[in-house]
Amino acid sequence: MKVLVLAAGRSKRMHPIGDKNFLNFLGKPLIQHQLEFLSRNGFKDIVVVGSCTNLEEIRKIGDKITGKVEVCEQKNLDLGMAGAVLAAKDLLKGAVLIFSSNDVVEDTALKMIQNCDESCMIGKKVEEYFPGGYLEINSDGYIQNIIEKPGEGNEPSDMVNLVLHKHKDISKLINYLSEAESSNDDLYEVAILNMINDGVAIKALPYDGFWQPIKYPWHVHRVFKYLFCLEEKGIADSVEIADTAVIKGDVIIEDGVKIFDGAVINGPVYIGAKSIVANNSLLRESHIGTGCMVGFSTEVARSYWGEKVWTHMNYVGDSVISNDVSFGAGSVTGNLRLDDGNIQVDGVDTKMQKVGSIIGEKVRVGVNTSIMPGVKIGSNTFIGAGIVIPNDIPDGSFVKASLDLKISENKFKK
Amino acid sequence: MKVLVLAAGRSKRMHPIGDKNFLNFLGKPLIQHQLEFLSRNGFKDIVVVGSCTNLEEIRKIGDKITGKVEVCEQKNLDLGMAGAVLAAKDLLKGAVLIFSSNDVVEDTALKMIQNCDESCMIGKKVEEYFPGGYLEINSDGYIQNIIEKPGEGNEPSDMVNLVLHKHKDISKLINYLSEAESSNDDLYEVAILNMINDGVAIKALPYDGFWQPIKYPWHVHRVFKYLFCLEEKGIADSVEIADTAVIKGDVIIEDGVKIFDGAVINGPVYIGAKSIVANNSLLRESHIGTGCMVGFSTEVARSYWGEKVWTHMNYVGDSVISNDVSFGAGSVTGNLRLDDGNIQVDGVDTKMQKVGSIIGEKVRVGVNTSIMPGVKIGSNTFIGAGIVIPNDIPDGSFVKASLDLKISENKFKK
Amino acid sequence: MKVLVLAAGRSKRMHPIGDKNFLNFLGKPLIQHQLEFLSRNGFKDIVVVGSCTNLEEIRKIGDKITGKVEVCEQKNLDLGMAGAVLAAKDLLKGAVLIFSSNDVVEDTALKMIQNCDESCMIGKKVEEYFPGGYLEINSDGYIQNIIEKPGEGNEPSDMVNLVLHKHKDISKLINYLSEAESSNDDLYEVAILNMINDGVAIKALPYDGFWQPIKYPWHVHRVFKYLFCLEEKGIADSVEIADTAVIKGDVIIEDGVKIFDGAVINGPVYIGAKSIVANNSLLRESHIGTGCMVGFSTEVARSYWGEKVWTHMNYVGDSVISNDVSFGAGSVTGNLRLDDGNIQVDGVDTKMQKVGSIIGEKVRVGVNTSIMPGVKIGSNTFIGAGIVIPNDIPDGSFVKASLDLKISENKFKK
Repeated sequence: MKVLVLAAGRSKRMHPIGDKNFLNFLGKPLIQHQLEFLSRNGFKDIVVVGSCTNLEEIRKIGDKITGKVEVCEQKNLDLGMAGAVLAAKDLLKGAVLIFSSNDVVEDTALKMIQNCDESCMIGKKVEEYFPGGYLEINSDGYIQNIIEKPGEGNEPSDMVNLVLHKHKDISKLINYLSEAESSNDDLYEVAILNMINDGVAIKALPYDGFWQPIKYPWHVHRVFKYLFCLEEKGIADSVEIADTAVIKGDVIIEDGVKIFDGAVINGPVYIGAKSIVANNSLLRESHIGTGCMVGFSTEVARSYWGEKVWTHMNYVGDSVISNDVSFGAGSVTGNLRLDDGNIQVDGVDTKMQKVGSIIGEKVRVGVNTSIMPGVKIGSNTFIGAGIVIPNDIPDGSFVKASLDLKISENKFKK
Repeated sequence: MKVLVLAAGRSKRMHPIGDKNFLNFLGKPLIQHQLEFLSRNGFKDIVVVGSCTNLEEIRKIGDKITGKVEVCEQKNLDLGMAGAVLAAKDLLKGAVLIFSSNDVVEDTALKMIQNCDESCMIGKKVEEYFPGGYLEINSDGYIQNIIEKPGEGNEPSDMVNLVLHKHKDISKLINYLSEAESSNDDLYEVAILNMINDGVAIKALPYDGFWQPIKYPWHVHRVFKYLFCLEEKGIADSVEIADTAVIKGDVIIEDGVKIFDGAVINGPVYIGAKSIVANNSLLRESHIGTGCMVGFSTEVARSYWGEKVWTHMNYVGDSVISNDVSFGAGSVTGNLRLDDGNIQVDGVDTKMQKVGSIIGEKVRVGVNTSIMPGVKIGSNTFIGAGIVIPNDIPDGSFVKASLDLKISENKFKK
Repeated sequence: MKVLVLAAGRSKRMHPIGDKNFLNFLGKPLIQHQLEFLSRNGFKDIVVVGSCTNLEEIRKIGDKITGKVEVCEQKNLDLGMAGAVLAAKDLLKGAVLIFSSNDVVEDTALKMIQNCDESCMIGKKVEEYFPGGYLEINSDGYIQNIIEKPGEGNEPSDMVNLVLHKHKDISKLINYLSEAESSNDDLYEVAILNMINDGVAIKALPYDGFWQPIKYPWHVHRVFKYLFCLEEKGIADSVEIADTAVIKGDVIIEDGVKIFDGAVINGPVYIGAKSIVANNSLLRESHIGTGCMVGFSTEVARSYWGEKVWTHMNYVGDSVISNDVSFGAGSVTGNLRLDDGNIQVDGVDTKMQKVGSIIGEKVRVGVNTSIMPGVKIGSNTFIGAGIVIPNDIPDGSFVKASLDLKISENKFKK
C-alpha cells in the first residue's frame, strides 16, 4: 500500500518558527521522524507532496529512508488537502494511505489501518472537546458525516477525524475530488461526503493512543516528549561531565557535549552535539539543539531550542526558540500571567497557564530584557537592553525603548 | 496569679503584614508562642483581651494551651491599654499580671515577677536611647514616675517600661482607671501615676534579658531569631536532601521539605512543611513558612516568609513577606541604599542600613522588577514586569509602567 | 648603566581608572612590578620621573626595590618624553636606558639591550598593523627614521618603536633635546632624528617577545594575564574552601580568602587577601583585588577588579573596575553588541567584540541596572535601579531614570 504524505502546508500558524517539517527533534527533522515511522511500520512506498519551498530538502531526507520515497510539488497551496492529492495523482494507484506530516501518532494507528480490509479513517477518541472535525458514525461503525467544529455538547461522537485515511481505490477519490465544488478549503471533505452519500463505505477506526498535531508552536513540547520516549536513552562516550554536575532522569546527550560544575539536568532532556551546559545552570524537561550554550546560572524548563541558542543567567520557560538566538544576561521569558490566566498567543487561547516566548531565527535579546508570556519575536530581530516586550514583534525589527535619564550632581558621594 | 494578655491592638504600624498575633513563627502564631511562654512559666490562668477581628481565632488557639485561657472583647480600641483592662474587669480578681502579646521576653522576666511579693513592673535596662517610657525610680527601687520619650540625655534611669506589670490588687487599678482622665491614649499611665501619688508602692524590676516588641515589620526578624533559639533543632525524617545540597548551622526543617541539588542553607533557618528549596539557591538566616518555593538560583537572606511564597532567580533580603506572594524571575527586593543611609519605612527611620520589602498577602511581582529598600507593597496587588517601585503601593493595586517602545527596521540583521 | 623610568604621564586615556602606575596587580602596583623587573635584570640604579601627583607614592614604592631608586619631578607634563629626560638631567650620566613605566615587556628585551654595546632601541616585531611609530632601518640594522602612524601598507619595517632606548652617552641626547624644536609633543623624536642625521648610530634591536602597553583600560586584562604567568601559583594556607567549591586551572589565592559552597573558579584567577567568593558564583580569567565580594550567583569573566568591589547576582564580563565599587542584585555589565560589532570606548575602536564596563572609584550601581558595552562610569557616581546606561557618565554623577508608574485598581485580584 502506498502512503501519500501531506507536507506542503505553509506553517503560517507556526510563525516565526518556520516550516514544521524541518523542526529538528533529537537530531532529525520532524519529516524524517514521520517517514521513518511509516517505513518501520511497513509503509515503504511513500509519496510526499511538498511545496516549492521544501521539496528539495524533503527529497534529500527521503533518500535516507529505508524504502522508496518520491516527492511531488503542490503548486496551489490554497487548494489544501484536495490539491495535494490531485498534485500526486499520477504517482498513486490502488490502495493509498493519506497521512499528514504534522500529526504525530503511535504505531498502533498504522497497525489498525493495516488490519482493516476496507477504506477507513482513524477517529481519535477524545475526552474533552477539541475544535476539529468529528466523525458521525452509524451503528455498524461506518462514517456518515464529518462535522467540523460542532461546538462543545454537539459532538456526534467522541471521535475526531485525524488525517490517517485509507482509500482502497484512490482513483475513486481522485474522481470525486475532480468533481467536488466548494468555496472553502474543504474540497477534500466535500468529496469524501459525496462518496459516502453515493454509498462508498468508510470504516471509522476508534483510536485512543497518543496524538499530537503540530499546528501551533506550543504543541512542539508535547511532540518532543513523545519522540523522546521512543528513542534509546544514553550519554555519548565523548561527553564531558564535571564532578559536581548532576544528571537525573532520562537523558539523551550527544557527542562532544560538555557539562560544567554545578550544572543540574533533570530529564527528560535531549542535548544535541557540542552543546555546553555551563556552571550552576538548570536544564529540565527540554530539548536543546546542537551547538547551544545553556549559560551560567540559566534555567531552561519545558522548552524547545533549535541550534546555536545562547543564554547567560536567563530563565527560559515553556518557550520555543529557533536557531541562532541569544539572550543577554538577566533577560527573561515570562511564562505565567500575574492572574494565572490562560496565555493567549497571537489571539489564540492556548488553554495553558504557562507559555513563554516563541522566537524566530537570528534574534538577539539584550541584557535584563523581559518578554511577556506568549509573545512571538520575529526572526532577524534585535531587542535592546532593559525593555519589557508586551506584544508580538514583526520579523526584521530593531526594538529599543526611549530612555529619559536624569544625570545630576551626586550630592551623596562618599 | 492571673495574667491579662493584651491582644486587641490594630497592628496599624505592621501594615500590610496584618494582625501580628497571627504572624506564624516556626509553625505557630505568635500569640500561641506567648501563651505557651506564660503557661510553661506557671501562669496557667490567662485572660486574653482581643478585638472583634481576632477574638475567635485567639479562643481556638487558647484551647491548645495547658491551663485555662479565657477571652474577652475590647470594643473601643481607642481606649488602648486602659480599655483592655476595663473590658476584662469582670474576669479579674486579686493579683494580676498585665502582659502585652507583642512584647517578646525571656523566662527570667516572668521569674522576677513571680519572685516579687509586691506590685511591680519590669524595667528593661537599655544601653542606647530608646523612644519609650522610662521609669523614674527612688532610692528604694520604687517607681515615682514614668516619663514618655524623654529625649536622649534626659532619661531618668536606664530602665524602659515594658508591659509586664504585676498589680497585687487589680480592683484598685480598675478603680483608678475608672476615674482617670486624659485627652490622649495614656489613660493607663495616668491611672498608674495617680496610684503612685496616692502612695501605692510599685517596685521596678531591672531586667537585662532579651526584649523585642513587634511594633514595626522590621522587628519580625529579631523575634524569629529569638524564638528559633528556644526551639529544638533538627530535620524531619521525611525531608529529602539531594546529594550536592549543603546544610550548615542550626536548622529546623519540617516534614515533606525537599532540598534540591546545589542548594545551600546556612542556619539559623526554619523551613515549614512541604516547602521546596530548589537548585542552586541560597537560604540564610531566614524563616520560610509552609508550602513555599525558594526557587532556582534565589537568595533569601535575613527574611521572613509566610506560607506559599514563590520565588525564581530572585534576591529577597531583609524582607517580610506575607502569605501567597510570588516573584517573577529576576525581580529583586533592594535592601541597601546607594549611600548606605538608614532605611525609612513609611516615614519612620528604622535605624537600619539594610531593610528590604514589606509585602502583604496575595501579591504578584512581575519579572525583572525592582522594589526599593523599605517599600511596602499592599495586599492583593499585582506589579508588572521590568518596573522600579520607589514608594509604598496601596492594597489592591495594579501597577504598571508606561512603556514607549520604538520598533524600526533592523538594519544590523545578520 | 642607569635607567630612566618615565612615569609622569597623565593617564588621561585611562579615565576613570586613574594613574596606571598604581593599578594594583597581584597585590602590587604596576610601577613596583616594573621596578622589580628592572632590578632583577640587573638595572639597579634607577631614576623615576614622576609628576607632583605621584612622586611621593613612587618614592615609597622605590624604597622597597633592591638597588637605588631616585625620583624627580617633571613639572611641565606638556613637554612629554623630552621634558622627562630634561627634568632628570642632573641625575643622569654616561649610558642610560630610557624605559616607560607602562610598557610591559619580557626579560629578553632587557637582555638584548645589555648585550648590545651601542646605542640602541627595541623594535617590537608586529604581524598586524599597529598605530605607533615604525622604525626605518638601513641594511646594517641601524635606525634611519621613525615614522609615526604610517598607515597600513606604508610601514617602513615590521618594527614598532618601544620606549626601551639605550643612549651610550646621555649628555649628547640632553644637548640635542635642549636644541630641538617642535610645535608638537614629539620633541624627543625630533632630537633623536637630529642625532641620527648628525651621524649618531642607533641600532634597532628586533624583539618578538611579549609587549603590552597600558594605554587604554581594555589593555589591563592582557597585562594581568602576563604578570600572572610570571608569578608563583598557589593557595595560601589560611584560605577556606568549602567542600563543594571547585577550583580549576592556575590560581593565586591570598591569605584569608573564603570560597563558599558551589563556587567555581576557573584559572587564571588571582584573588586578593580577605576576599570572598560566595555561593554558586563563577570566577574565571580574572583579577580580584583585596577585600572584594564575588557575590552569590555572580559571574566574573575576563575582568579586573581593584579593592572592595562588591557584587551580588551580577554578570561582570570584560570589565575594569576600580576600588570601592558595588553592584546591586541583577545589574549587568553588557559586553557584546547585538550585532557582534567591535566595541567603541569613548570614540576609540577597541578592535574587540567583547568589552564590558570601565568604572571609576566609589561607584554604586542599583539593582537590575544594565551598563552597555564599553561604557565608562566616572568615579564618585551613583546609578539608580532598573536603568540602562548607554553612554559614558561623568565623575560625581547621580543618575536616575524618570519613571511613569500607573497605579490603578487591581481588578484581577485573587
